[in-house]
Amino acid sequence: MFDYKAAFQTAVEQVRTEGRYRVFADLKRVQGRFPLATRRREDGSEQDVVVWCSNDYLGMGQHPSVLEAMKSAVDESGAGAGGTRNISGTTRSAVDLEAELASWHRKEAALLMTSGYVANEATLTALQRIMPGLIIFSDSLNHASMIAGIRNGGCERHVFLHNDLQHLETLLAAAPADSPKLIAFESVYSMDGDIADLKGTIALAKKYGAMTYLDEVHAVGLYGETGAGVAERDGVLDGIDIIECTLGKAIGVMGGYIAADAVIVDAVRSWAAGFIFTTSLPPALTAGALASVRHLKAHPELRAAHQERAETLKQRFAAAGIPVMPSESHIVPVFVGDPVHAKMISDMLLEDHGIYVQPINYPTVPKGTERLRFTPSPNHDDGMMDALVTAMDRLWTHCNVARMPRAA
Amino acid sequence: MFDYKAAFQTAVEQVRTEGRYRVFADLKRVQGRFPLATRRREDGSEQDVVVWCSNDYLGMGQHPSVLEAMKSAVDESGAGAGGTRNISGTTRSAVDLEAELASWHRKEAALLMTSGYVANEATLTALQRIMPGLIIFSDSLNHASMIAGIRNGGCERHVFLHNDLQHLETLLAAAPADSPKLIAFESVYSMDGDIADLKGTIALAKKYGAMTYLDEVHAVGLYGETGAGVAERDGVLDGIDIIECTLGKAIGVMGGYIAADAVIVDAVRSWAAGFIFTTSLPPALTAGALASVRHLKAHPELRAAHQERAETLKQRFAAAGIPVMPSESHIVPVFVGDPVHAKMISDMLLEDHGIYVQPINYPTVPKGTERLRFTPSPNHDDGMMDALVTAMDRLWTHCNVARMPRAA
Repeated sequence: MFDYKAAFQTAVEQVRTEGRYRVFADLKRVQGRFPLATRRREDGSEQDVVVWCSNDYLGMGQHPSVLEAMKSAVDESGAGAGGTRNISGTTRSAVDLEAELASWHRKEAALLMTSGYVANEATLTALQRIMPGLIIFSDSLNHASMIAGIRNGGCERHVFLHNDLQHLETLLAAAPADSPKLIAFESVYSMDGDIADLKGTIALAKKYGAMTYLDEVHAVGLYGETGAGVAERDGVLDGIDIIECTLGKAIGVMGGYIAADAVIVDAVRSWAAGFIFTTSLPPALTAGALASVRHLKAHPELRAAHQERAETLKQRFAAAGIPVMPSESHIVPVFVGDPVHAKMISDMLLEDHGIYVQPINYPTVPKGTERLRFTPSPNHDDGMMDALVTAMDRLWTHCNVARMPRAA
Repeated sequence: MFDYKAAFQTAVEQVRTEGRYRVFADLKRVQGRFPLATRRREDGSEQDVVVWCSNDYLGMGQHPSVLEAMKSAVDESGAGAGGTRNISGTTRSAVDLEAELASWHRKEAALLMTSGYVANEATLTALQRIMPGLIIFSDSLNHASMIAGIRNGGCERHVFLHNDLQHLETLLAAAPADSPKLIAFESVYSMDGDIADLKGTIALAKKYGAMTYLDEVHAVGLYGETGAGVAERDGVLDGIDIIECTLGKAIGVMGGYIAADAVIVDAVRSWAAGFIFTTSLPPALTAGALASVRHLKAHPELRAAHQERAETLKQRFAAAGIPVMPSESHIVPVFVGDPVHAKMISDMLLEDHGIYVQPINYPTVPKGTERLRFTPSPNHDDGMMDALVTAMDRLWTHCNVARMPRAA
């Protein structure tokens, strides 16, 4: 008879051996004091920490208008939605939020999902059912949720080298001209902080008759005049057929969505199992997200402050010889290149300095490129940055990690 | 070049032709007055309705302790969790909720997911990665999310006839004795209201060396002395290896989880993409669910009231000759047998009587077994039931739908 316990132990052991066994930091976010949080250690003792790796990029997760909207929704409509979208679970603020999101991305319609992960998985799977014979061209660094959706649909797929339009064109040119095609990519890649060439990709899509599917989860709220993402910043909203995004990062709540032509949304709505067969978002989440989106649209100065913080941190790391990796975006990755070092530095930052940043190891990034990934928000002040750079400088010496040549 | 618009139009048209094009009722739940809600028509006008098809089975979605816990969490910790569980998103109340859920199901550990759908999909996919060569035996009426997880893992699978232990045994006996095996089934099947034979299934699992995976989403909170589900009611919690459930039905909030031995949870936690790569549940949801679970454990009288309401409605329908289908549970399905009739009756109940119950058509149920599915809660009072039975009686005559012989 099969030894189940041994199989599970082996699976866990393998993860440990690969240096990617995860111990979750138990955090209590302190509303009104973000990025501060209270960490509970395994022995029950507590520690104040500064969170440097949150995806609540603009601190909207504590914005008064968001919190008030959430509490009002709880008072008015209660806790959960009570059902799937089709069976009693279509909350009014969900309908209103979809209209707001559609207009933000200048699309005819939007469709809420449980999360960004689900939006990618469910939509990409459904597109393969809607268009049998679809050929998908997928950037090699696409997020796990896109890969899951592409795989689960079972259609033909080709992976192009990251941000390599020449390789993409070679693959597109080799596919039958009359086949349905989809280019699936992201705008901001969250582990390196680089940004895709949207215009170039759209031009190829038009040339070869492909649809474009763009994941903007690390960009919406953060780029473009009204925060609609890199597609807005680059003036190419019309060139993207399906925009996918999350309510859980810059918007500060939780949930996901797509925005597209009405007929596309209607088809996905009708075919995507991950959308149909699941309880819809609670009124508190849709109402909170709605308030957040309205605020983000009206406040470009938040985005300016965000970019300034990221740029300042990059410069300060570079000036201290800390090997900050090239990044065109608000993501500030620091190269370590070894999983044990990355974990050790992260642990020491946390225990000795109250600085919380998670090490990023394989398989999230390739082996040998292990890193720390900082996400400064407008709420990270100069004092926090001083403390961070000082601590990193000390640890780099202490751990004897490679430095960059010090900048001027 | 491929005509994308036509493809999407065709996909929508196919759904219309099959009679399963869905128009979502736009509802505003009225906290404190559940099952009442305000419906917004497409023309913007409003209508008060009684919701008869919610999965908020016990009205916990408006329980004061749940709402207070949610609002306190918003005040204390803000809106979203700000990250994945591994990257700054492990909220304290999530950790506490996992401990509470584990103890409820008398398991060593529990793991929260974004939804019940995700819990099924992510766990069942991960189990196939953890145990290569796994053979899954799946009940023919399992939920779409279990089917998705089983398929996406790519292992060998066998579907056994619904609740047919003889067929299950035949399939188990034919599989290699030393292969890893998993029996995946539900306790309460939500469209028919029947309940699986847990003891019989567990006995087969032991005989053939299989693991058991039980979906209790329509049972947790509702069955068993403390509400831990049918496995508790039947005294077989120990015989189930992995229990999967939702926070979005009887618990009244949103989210999902599994509970199992610590090593199983640790392996799933480390291998399930749908768990790893997604923003975790907001503090408001985990805190609300925690308050709800604690209340449910301590209040068996809620479960008694719930069963009484369901039993009363079944008897009243039967007395009026309305063809209520046999159901061992709190689900009250009424047979219509035709998608057009089911939709018409549902529309007339809504427009003419302010009674909201969604028609259940193919593919959720087999063609020719279209039905209405009522879920009375302790909050549905006698007056609401009078109005419902009177309206149904009139419509059955009006639409000339087949009746049962009237009971005494």
